[in-house]
Amino acid sequence: MFAGHPVSALAARYGSPAFVYSMARVKANLQRLHSALEAAGFAGRYSILYAMKANRFAPLLTHLKTLGLCGIDACSPQEVELAVSCGFKPAQISFTAGSLSKNDFDILSRFDGLVMDCDSIHAIKTWGKYRPGAAIGIRINPALGVSRENNSALQYAGSVTTKFGIYREQFHEALAIAKAAGLTVNKIHFHTGCGYLTPQLEQWDRVIASCQWFLDQCPDLRVVNVGGGLGVPHTAEDGTLDLTQWGEILRKHFGNRKIQLEVEPGEYVLKDAGLLLLGKTYLEKKQNTWFLGLDAGFNIAPEPAYYKLPFQPLSLELGNGTFSQLQVVGNINEALDVWFQDAWLPAMDNQDYLALINAGAYSSSMASNHCMRGAFREYLID
Amino acid sequence: MFAGHPVSALAARYGSPAFVYSMARVKANLQRLHSALEAAGFAGRYSILYAMKANRFAPLLTHLKTLGLCGIDACSPQEVELAVSCGFKPAQISFTAGSLSKNDFDILSRFDGLVMDCDSIHAIKTWGKYRPGAAIGIRINPALGVSRENNSALQYAGSVTTKFGIYREQFHEALAIAKAAGLTVNKIHFHTGCGYLTPQLEQWDRVIASCQWFLDQCPDLRVVNVGGGLGVPHTAEDGTLDLTQWGEILRKHFGNRKIQLEVEPGEYVLKDAGLLLLGKTYLEKKQNTWFLGLDAGFNIAPEPAYYKLPFQPLSLELGNGTFSQLQVVGNINEALDVWFQDAWLPAMDNQDYLALINAGAYSSSMASNHCMRGAFREYLID
Repeated sequence: MFAGHPVSALAARYGSPAFVYSMARVKANLQRLHSALEAAGFAGRYSILYAMKANRFAPLLTHLKTLGLCGIDACSPQEVELAVSCGFKPAQISFTAGSLSKNDFDILSRFDGLVMDCDSIHAIKTWGKYRPGAAIGIRINPALGVSRENNSALQYAGSVTTKFGIYREQFHEALAIAKAAGLTVNKIHFHTGCGYLTPQLEQWDRVIASCQWFLDQCPDLRVVNVGGGLGVPHTAEDGTLDLTQWGEILRKHFGNRKIQLEVEPGEYVLKDAGLLLLGKTYLEKKQNTWFLGLDAGFNIAPEPAYYKLPFQPLSLELGNGTFSQLQVVGNINEALDVWFQDAWLPAMDNQDYLALINAGAYSSSMASNHCMRGAFREYLID
Repeated sequence: MFAGHPVSALAARYGSPAFVYSMARVKANLQRLHSALEAAGFAGRYSILYAMKANRFAPLLTHLKTLGLCGIDACSPQEVELAVSCGFKPAQISFTAGSLSKNDFDILSRFDGLVMDCDSIHAIKTWGKYRPGAAIGIRINPALGVSRENNSALQYAGSVTTKFGIYREQFHEALAIAKAAGLTVNKIHFHTGCGYLTPQLEQWDRVIASCQWFLDQCPDLRVVNVGGGLGVPHTAEDGTLDLTQWGEILRKHFGNRKIQLEVEPGEYVLKDAGLLLLGKTYLEKKQNTWFLGLDAGFNIAPEPAYYKLPFQPLSLELGNGTFSQLQVVGNINEALDVWFQDAWLPAMDNQDYLALINAGAYSSSMASNHCMRGAFREYLID
């Protein structure tokens, strides 16, 4: 069952390849975050900003606007334009991105009220010319990070210097430049990790502690944005993220500060609210290995190929109770194109479709037309 | 200089991000392959099939058709349709792909004369229903492979069973099924590696030797397709592929066989015929590391992110002779989005553009609109 429907009925109706998204699950994920933040004492002084890069399907964005449970975290001028066209006001959009071009600044400057987080001294200088007198955020980098099981492809901050944010070594210079440009720094933003779950919360606590120094340097501080990075389980061994413990960490560090708290979940809101329905093409033994072929490849949902985070495949029928080990593969002529190694699945002989779970985020939004195999459908189920 | 023009003039004319392709270089690459195959004794009995998945820019395909130096290797029905719309005849197109759906077979069956390489027993059975009496190829897997420096992301064949082709264990069954379906197996196809250079030729020789058994099982054999995989240098330490040695290996194995030889280069034809021109956004020190920001990210040219094959960045001016070490980064909010670590570049303060070399293949063809940063231009220079 998914979004109140048997998945086999969804597959029969929508065909494949198709992404289906459950608006009920999106809403439940957002409400769970609201509850955790309220329980941690932030009632009336926090915002949730959905990171639209996780999934920018326009009907989804419009539904989110209508729901009223979140604003938007955007990372390109084009995302700002789409969010506004889906109904969000610029003041509900927080913009954080690096390496902005003159053309980017030109577009961003057209949106009155947009909340700008500067990721570099260059951005502070430039925005000061476009918007003298404005309030800005600064994205900082505490040189400490957290990621799902130390996955280096997901490392935003840590012992190696990354492109993200302004480090302690340059922070006073950044504040001086903001002041000289007539900008007020009223927000600090830090996006320190990706895909963290309960075992990583201890490290996340240390990371947040290391950000406090930056806050203390900003006399006009009004908003602290702790980024996203909240993860969902990918394997049976992963537990869910303990939001109570997460909220307590936020309370410990920010409970007594007079600030508005912002969080920017993307994966946490959308990932488990999406299924990818794929059609079976063949089931065949090669050497001693059984392969189950599907009618789309890694290019329409690249997370397994980029980050080694495979989508668990699920059979739509239980079969006769016997399971076998299958390599679940796509239709692209590339060695990377393996959906799942060693999946245990019931008899697939008489099944036409298979579902991959956790396909709601960083899938369709990162899809390419590689090998001209880029066609897919998307459906939002409300 | 590129394609007869100063690169700074190309950048000033085309802006950024822009891919520029040199048709002269494409032609030279093809002619070098022709010369090597002729020198190895295959004059009049070989074909070069360009693997269009490397770059399917339509003007390029039409130019290639006009040049007449190659046919096409296609890997999806949509690629076949595009190649035909660019002027190629179905009989000039060799089709090799796995995991084909019913819809795929429906489309493929519309192209009379298309050369079909079956990648599985399932494909043989199915094609036999669509085209009883036809001649087919079979893609085989010798369970031995070769790749650039044993890069596992590029491993098509080897000790682990992959989805590609039919193995020795199932080959007699495949031949029996073809016979029962009234199909004639007149072609053997093997794509055994990716990005190989001279140091890998010894292994390539062994791989080809291991394919001979399959050829001996096919009484109607007329064509042998040895796939692509010919690499180009990516670093200063890499040498070019020794085509004389490559041709001698082909002569040794196929010189005395009465067969038509086919090769399917993609990277070799296009990769070094393309530059990616990107605009500088900022140059800034973070901690003790200098970052050079560019106006596009890994999503428009994902090879570095997928395969750890970075594009070498080149400054368009020499500057005053002093060089410094820079992290060259893109504009995507992802840790993966690094164009080049530790690039030594001349002073970039007064330069507006930078060129990435080796961007002609597996770049624009794999581009995505991640973060809605997918816009780029493409120009063919003839």
